[in-house]
Amino acid sequence: MLVQKYADMLKGKSVIRMLSEFAQKRGKEIGYENVFDYSLGNPSVPVPEAFTRTCIELLEKEEPGKLHGYSQSLGNPSVRRKVADSLNKRFGMNYTENHIFMASGAAGALAHAFRLIAAEGDEIITFAPFFPEYTPYVNLTGARLKVVAPQTIDFQINLEAFEGMIGEKTKAVLVNTPNNPTGAVYSRAVLEKLAKILDRKSEELGHRIYLISDEPYREIIFTGVEAPYVSHFYDYTISCYSFSKSLSLPGERIGYVAVNPACPDAETMIQMCGQISRGIGHNCPASLIQLAVAEHLDKTADLSVYETNGMLLYEELIRLGFTCVKPGGTFYLFPKALEEDAKLFCEKALKYDLVMVPGDSFGCPGYFRMAYCIDTKKVERSLEAIREFVKNEY
Amino acid sequence: MLVQKYADMLKGKSVIRMLSEFAQKRGKEIGYENVFDYSLGNPSVPVPEAFTRTCIELLEKEEPGKLHGYSQSLGNPSVRRKVADSLNKRFGMNYTENHIFMASGAAGALAHAFRLIAAEGDEIITFAPFFPEYTPYVNLTGARLKVVAPQTIDFQINLEAFEGMIGEKTKAVLVNTPNNPTGAVYSRAVLEKLAKILDRKSEELGHRIYLISDEPYREIIFTGVEAPYVSHFYDYTISCYSFSKSLSLPGERIGYVAVNPACPDAETMIQMCGQISRGIGHNCPASLIQLAVAEHLDKTADLSVYETNGMLLYEELIRLGFTCVKPGGTFYLFPKALEEDAKLFCEKALKYDLVMVPGDSFGCPGYFRMAYCIDTKKVERSLEAIREFVKNEY
Repeated sequence: MLVQKYADMLKGKSVIRMLSEFAQKRGKEIGYENVFDYSLGNPSVPVPEAFTRTCIELLEKEEPGKLHGYSQSLGNPSVRRKVADSLNKRFGMNYTENHIFMASGAAGALAHAFRLIAAEGDEIITFAPFFPEYTPYVNLTGARLKVVAPQTIDFQINLEAFEGMIGEKTKAVLVNTPNNPTGAVYSRAVLEKLAKILDRKSEELGHRIYLISDEPYREIIFTGVEAPYVSHFYDYTISCYSFSKSLSLPGERIGYVAVNPACPDAETMIQMCGQISRGIGHNCPASLIQLAVAEHLDKTADLSVYETNGMLLYEELIRLGFTCVKPGGTFYLFPKALEEDAKLFCEKALKYDLVMVPGDSFGCPGYFRMAYCIDTKKVERSLEAIREFVKNEY
Repeated sequence: MLVQKYADMLKGKSVIRMLSEFAQKRGKEIGYENVFDYSLGNPSVPVPEAFTRTCIELLEKEEPGKLHGYSQSLGNPSVRRKVADSLNKRFGMNYTENHIFMASGAAGALAHAFRLIAAEGDEIITFAPFFPEYTPYVNLTGARLKVVAPQTIDFQINLEAFEGMIGEKTKAVLVNTPNNPTGAVYSRAVLEKLAKILDRKSEELGHRIYLISDEPYREIIFTGVEAPYVSHFYDYTISCYSFSKSLSLPGERIGYVAVNPACPDAETMIQMCGQISRGIGHNCPASLIQLAVAEHLDKTADLSVYETNGMLLYEELIRLGFTCVKPGGTFYLFPKALEEDAKLFCEKALKYDLVMVPGDSFGCPGYFRMAYCIDTKKVERSLEAIREFVKNEY
C-alpha cells in the first residue's frame, strides 16, 4: 500500500548515475586519476576562501539565536534584499526583496516555479536537449513536460516548432541558458523572438504563458560571449537560480526564485511560494548558508578552468572531425557521435576509460555529453585517449 | 492563471504568527523584555558551543569539494550510518543507513512520510490538539487530515474514538509525542493499545495502516517521565525527527526519516524518499550541517531551562485555580481558559502584555497554549502579570 508512482520510479536508473558509478569502480582498479570521467556535472573548483572565512566569522561572532533561528518562510529578509540589489546592479532590473524567494538550489526553485503556474493536466514546454531531471520535476506536479525537438545546427531553439506546440494546456515554457548539456547560450535575437511568440500566443489563447528560466550556469560564460539576462525580454519571467556552480556549493542547497517586478502578480507569486513550501516541506535553505552567500553575491569561485578545459576539448574534437557546437558557457560539450547510436559510441569509449553520456537521456539521440568540470591536467591526458579511441574504432 | 489553491491559502493568516507580530510591535513600545511573549515555539537556548566548533573545524580542515559537494539524494551515507548507530544505541533498535533518509527538518521529513503512504483521496488521522501546520502539510498531498477529538482529561488519546474513525481510506495515523501543544508524553500503555488497534484494523481492512511519528521534542523530557520510543510498538512506523529543538538549530533545516527495519518495505521506502525529493525539489539538508550534526547526535543544547520554566508556570496556574495537565516534556503548556471562549480569554490577557495562543488553532477550543521557550527571568516576572490578569478579569 505504498504510493506506486514513487515505487515505479525506482525501476528506471539514471544513465548518468550508472556511468558515474562505473567511473568510480574503474578508478578503484586503475586509479581514479586514470579514468577520464566526463559523466557528472559536479563543480571541480573550490569554494572561494572568502566564503569560508565569512562562514567562520558568522559562527564565531553572530548571536546563535539569530544565526541558527528560524528564518521567515520566504527566506531571510536581509538576504532577499541583498539578492535583489545585486541583480539590479548587474542586470539593470528593479527587484525588491518582495520579488525574491530563497530556495534550496535550482531544484527547489523550480519546484516552486512549476507549482505557481501548473497543476494536474497542464503542460510545460521545454527544448531538447534538456536536463533529464526536468521530466520527474514536472511530472510529479501532475503537469506534463512537452519537448520541442533539438535544433542541432546551433543548439539555439526551433521557434517555429515551439509555436506549433503551444496549446490550451500550455502554462509555461522552461528555458535553460547557458544550457546543460550543450553549453549554448541563447542569443538576444532568439530571446526576443521567443518573447514575441509568448505574447502573441498568450493573447490568442486568452491566458498568460509564463517563462521559467533555469539559470544555474549564469556565471559560467566564455570570453566574448554575450549572455543576456532572460527576464529582460519578457515580463512574465520567473528566474530560478542556484549558487551550486557559481560558488561551488552544490551540497549546501542554496538558490532563489526571482519574479520579474513587471509581472502583474509578482509579489503575490513570491508570497505563494511560501504557501507551496508548506505543502512540500521545503522551508528555506539553511540559515547559516543564506547569511554567508549574501556576502558573496557578486563574486564567484575561479571559474576560468571551465573555459580552458572546454576549449582544449572542443579544438581537439574539431581536429578529429567531430561535429560540435562551440560552447558559450557552462562546463558541458555536446558533440555528435561518430556513429548513429550514441549509446554504442559511449560504450566503446569506455574501453579507453573515457566516460561520456549518450544524448538519449537529454532527448537528443546521436549526440553525447562531456562534463569537463575536472582537472585540466586530466583533460590534457584524455586527449590522447580520445585520439586512440577515434583511430581504433572509426 | 496562477494556481488558485496557493493563492487562496494567502487569505488565511496564522493566529500564532499574528500574535507573535503583536508581541514584536508591543515590544517596540514598552521594550520587548516587558512583553510576556508565549506565542512562538522558537528555541531560546543557544546551540552547544561544541557544535559551533565542529562547524568551524569542518570549514577549516575538510577538503571543499567533500564539504560542499553534492551529497547523495538520500543524504550523506556516513551521516546516515551515524544516525542509525545512535538510534540503535539509545533505543535498542537495529537500523542501518538504509533505513535513514536525511531531511530538511521535521517539515521535510513529514512531507516525505506522507507521500510514501498517501495520495489523492486518502486519509491520515491525527489527534486534537495538534500542530496547525499538519493541515496544509497533508492537504497539499491531495490526502485529507481527519482529527480525533481531544481527550482533555490527560491529553493522551481517545482510542475508542480513533478506532471508530478508521475506514477504507485511512492510510496512516500521525502522532506527536511529546506533544505540541499539550506537553503530554504518550504512555507505554497508550502506545501498546494504539498498535493493537492498528494491527487489528489493518487486518480487517486488508491494507496496512502506517504510523507516522513526529518527534521534534523527543529530547525534551522532564524529570521522572518515561518517553517510550514510538517505533518500538509498531513495525510499520515512520519516525520523523528534527534537530531544531534538541540542538537549537531550527533555521538550519535538518532532520531525518527513520523507517522501522521490521517494516517489510523499509529499505524500499527510504529509496522512494529519494524519488519523492525529485518531485518536490527537496534534495537533502545542507552538507555542512549534515556533517556537523553527525558529530553531535547523542548531545543536546542545555534543555533544562524548559523544565524550570514549565514547572514555574504550571505550579502558579494550579495555584490560581486553572485546570492544566502537567507537561511531561516539550516547552508547551495547554491550560483550560477561564471562560468558554479562549479567543476572548487570550485577547483580555493581551492587556497585561501576556501573549498566549487560543486552542482553536490546535483543534481544541476553550484551551490556550503557552510556549515557554523564553528566559526564566521573564517567566518569573510574568507570574505577577498572570495573577493581575486573573484577579481583575475573572
